[in-house]
Amino acid sequence: MAAVSQFLHNHGANILHSDQHSTDPSGGSFFMRMEFHLGGLDLAREPFERAFAAVVAEPFGMDWRLSYASEPKRMAILVSRYDHCFLDLLWRKRRGELNVEIPLILSNHEDLRRDAEMFGIPFHVIEVTKGNKAEAEAEQVRLLREAGAEFAVLARYMQILSGDFLRDFGRPVINIHHSFLPAFVGANPYRAAFNRGVKLIGATSHYVTEELDAGPIIAQDVTPVTHRETPETLVRLGRDVERQVLARAVKAHVEDRVLVYGNKTVVF
Amino acid sequence: MAAVSQFLHNHGANILHSDQHSTDPSGGSFFMRMEFHLGGLDLAREPFERAFAAVVAEPFGMDWRLSYASEPKRMAILVSRYDHCFLDLLWRKRRGELNVEIPLILSNHEDLRRDAEMFGIPFHVIEVTKGNKAEAEAEQVRLLREAGAEFAVLARYMQILSGDFLRDFGRPVINIHHSFLPAFVGANPYRAAFNRGVKLIGATSHYVTEELDAGPIIAQDVTPVTHRETPETLVRLGRDVERQVLARAVKAHVEDRVLVYGNKTVVF
Amino acid sequence: MAAVSQFLHNHGANILHSDQHSTDPSGGSFFMRMEFHLGGLDLAREPFERAFAAVVAEPFGMDWRLSYASEPKRMAILVSRYDHCFLDLLWRKRRGELNVEIPLILSNHEDLRRDAEMFGIPFHVIEVTKGNKAEAEAEQVRLLREAGAEFAVLARYMQILSGDFLRDFGRPVINIHHSFLPAFVGANPYRAAFNRGVKLIGATSHYVTEELDAGPIIAQDVTPVTHRETPETLVRLGRDVERQVLARAVKAHVEDRVLVYGNKTVVF
Amino acid sequence: MAAVSQFLHNHGANILHSDQHSTDPSGGSFFMRMEFHLGGLDLAREPFERAFAAVVAEPFGMDWRLSYASEPKRMAILVSRYDHCFLDLLWRKRRGELNVEIPLILSNHEDLRRDAEMFGIPFHVIEVTKGNKAEAEAEQVRLLREAGAEFAVLARYMQILSGDFLRDFGRPVINIHHSFLPAFVGANPYRAAFNRGVKLIGATSHYVTEELDAGPIIAQDVTPVTHRETPETLVRLGRDVERQVLARAVKAHVEDRVLVYGNKTVVF
Repeated sequence: MAAVSQFLHNHGANILHSDQHSTDPSGGSFFMRMEFHLGGLDLAREPFERAFAAVVAEPFGMDWRLSYASEPKRMAILVSRYDHCFLDLLWRKRRGELNVEIPLILSNHEDLRRDAEMFGIPFHVIEVTKGNKAEAEAEQVRLLREAGAEFAVLARYMQILSGDFLRDFGRPVINIHHSFLPAFVGANPYRAAFNRGVKLIGATSHYVTEELDAGPIIAQDVTPVTHRETPETLVRLGRDVERQVLARAVKAHVEDRVLVYGNKTVVF
Repeated sequence: MAAVSQFLHNHGANILHSDQHSTDPSGGSFFMRMEFHLGGLDLAREPFERAFAAVVAEPFGMDWRLSYASEPKRMAILVSRYDHCFLDLLWRKRRGELNVEIPLILSNHEDLRRDAEMFGIPFHVIEVTKGNKAEAEAEQVRLLREAGAEFAVLARYMQILSGDFLRDFGRPVINIHHSFLPAFVGANPYRAAFNRGVKLIGATSHYVTEELDAGPIIAQDVTPVTHRETPETLVRLGRDVERQVLARAVKAHVEDRVLVYGNKTVVF
Repeated sequence: MAAVSQFLHNHGANILHSDQHSTDPSGGSFFMRMEFHLGGLDLAREPFERAFAAVVAEPFGMDWRLSYASEPKRMAILVSRYDHCFLDLLWRKRRGELNVEIPLILSNHEDLRRDAEMFGIPFHVIEVTKGNKAEAEAEQVRLLREAGAEFAVLARYMQILSGDFLRDFGRPVINIHHSFLPAFVGANPYRAAFNRGVKLIGATSHYVTEELDAGPIIAQDVTPVTHRETPETLVRLGRDVERQVLARAVKAHVEDRVLVYGNKTVVF
Repeated sequence: MAAVSQFLHNHGANILHSDQHSTDPSGGSFFMRMEFHLGGLDLAREPFERAFAAVVAEPFGMDWRLSYASEPKRMAILVSRYDHCFLDLLWRKRRGELNVEIPLILSNHEDLRRDAEMFGIPFHVIEVTKGNKAEAEAEQVRLLREAGAEFAVLARYMQILSGDFLRDFGRPVINIHHSFLPAFVGANPYRAAFNRGVKLIGATSHYVTEELDAGPIIAQDVTPVTHRETPETLVRLGRDVERQVLARAVKAHVEDRVLVYGNKTVVF
């Protein structure tokens, strides 16, 4: 911490926020995020990064990366038929809440084409069937890479992504699952919640890994429910939680506030 | 509903609260709870109940019961070493929040004897080991029945009750489990929550059935947590949720606001 | 209660939900809402209402009204420049969450015309200045009445409605105020919240009365904030609370679940 | 930040937590809290503090203080008749949640003497009347100073402390007010909340200043309520919020996580 802050100070950077976390103060991993203003920076980007690597990162054996807040991240969206998470992301981008560009939207259904077009975003439909999953995913990955997507958001995309997709895309994929994981993994969590008679329903946003609904959790929230709910009203109440939780997770990711270690996250 | 309210009206009762619920308006179960004031009642208890049975309950094929708010319910507490749920119940009883009498406390440890005695409540220690479980439970049931316990609360009682216990006691047993069920069933849920990296921890109060942590849920709540927590701080934060959730469930039970059907509850 | 439920039973209605509330069981006001299915109704609407008035309402001196869930309510929206509450209402109507028709939108700015048109709803701009307020309001009321608006929602409409407007329109007007009332009445509540250093911000939806931000409250909620917030981040965090609270209030109003008495509401 | 972390590093301290906050990155106040382990410290306390002052604090013009987590803070409690906040603090101290010693309790009533004695804490009753307020406060301050109280907590102490008390005691005083300030300042906030028909009630913990209920806020929370509540049930529901909020504020204070600036707090 001393070394990083000294380095930034020496190069004229003004530190805006700084966060640290040790998984175990007596010898675990140490995480740090510093947000600083580039105004008085005395070097161009490349020499600055080279200097940081040489003077700070290498001597301390750090894993590190540098992001530029002035550059919006390129976010792709995958969506099926439900519009609530999808429209919420588009609206937040328009409002300036999410510092992203959205170069493309992929869907397995035509339903949301008109909404996408109203926001002026290319909308591609790739049908996914039992028979064509491998080719469909290959085509999806091709489009994602062609569009320069830096990460993808599954805004209620109702297909399970294969390990091949994840490896070939090679970039973070954020999902919203409509339960408070690890409860109600898999399909129909609202129906399962109804059957179990829970008094809360929730939503979980996590990075996608090969194991279904088991990736590192970024954000979760719940809302109280009563015996009066039906599976249908759970779906309606859940929509409000899902879109909030997904937006919170995407915003944290976009602002480089999420650090993954093992199957967990630090969210600064 | 017409029949019940008409009957009460005819007998001079003043309805204070009334709640109804249909699991399915086109033919499911219908639940109703009416709270009324006895002041102007024109019959003694027994003839009133006989009249209700004859005039209303039998013609409509109702399952019904009548409770008298002026009679505190007799609540037994089973507890091990953690004091937070236990003291919270004793304090709420003292404050007049819970309309109960507490004729006895059962524990498998000596730790909380002094607290129990400060509240003037008999405290019995029955050690439970692998070898003596059946006899220990038989002795517990004997004491509970002798004390006239109408229901029992497991205020962090760290032993699993057998089906024999539940059948022999034959009255409701309320548990507090330190997770948002159905996530993290069984032992060490805070450790499991820590390992999974959840962003919420919770507590669930439910009626005890033979299947572990699977009985009808009465109340649940959660509190947000971050990557900064350790298993130890989860335990601390969880205590506040546990005692609130258990108190809410016990209060609802004591006020006859919980109706069980199948593995679910209606909480009016 | 007996009389109403008996009457409905006699006419073949199937009661779906029933709620009651007494402000004071020993002699205050008694509120009741019954939701029933018309399927087996044995009379047409008019004779049914006449019969109810004669047989039940008049003998008991009730204030009453009957609404038909099959008829969407006609909701007008007044909005200025902020889009979050506005779009949320339009989206919920499209999703089928709000059983309304939206015959017109009134604004004092052009900004949201394109959004309104995408949803196919007439959008009228009436500029309001210090000099023309009376005429502007008269024109607004004329348009509202012409469109048959049964109630109006101020979805962050940044003008104070006069008593004349309220009287001439003569129908409920629902507002969203961006604070937990009664704290921070009037302009710039987020700035005031920032200056006071509160650890929560909130939103309140209420019926509009002549006294600013003092009408009967329908719904309120809050979200936690920290010292890290600026007035700008409070505005952003507040948007999510505002739109949720307004939607909840509007939904309750549309479903005839709000009863006003004095300056308070019963929300069934 | 560089200077402080470098200094600590040079003296062998292991930084456990570090927090920073700028009120305005382009020139406001900068707050920092570092929690470090003393194990490898190479100097005794006094020379360490002298060195820090000379090498770091003075050159940078810092306001600073150093606390030792191994030394429990001495906390006095002032209380009247309500026991919920009071017992909660005593219980948390016993559980090890609050790193404090409680050298004395002051009250204006006898009611809670037995509870205090069960925890083995001296309990002094000083009646406060209109006529004797100045002398009563002088006696209170004398006892507080004699007991070496480092701060005082008003755990529902129903007297307003004068400016003289605050100046003469000269140490932080933490209050719990039973509303979400700035709403419902002063007496009877639950009655006022009932009259206003709010849908939330809350509690606020703040440092006491001469102006009533206007000091820097440390913690706040709310709980939802409905039209069914009476002033009495609001009091009951409020108790659970009050004790949680007060405990959270006291814990933050005890752990030196609260920094006051102007009329606001930074809570790390």
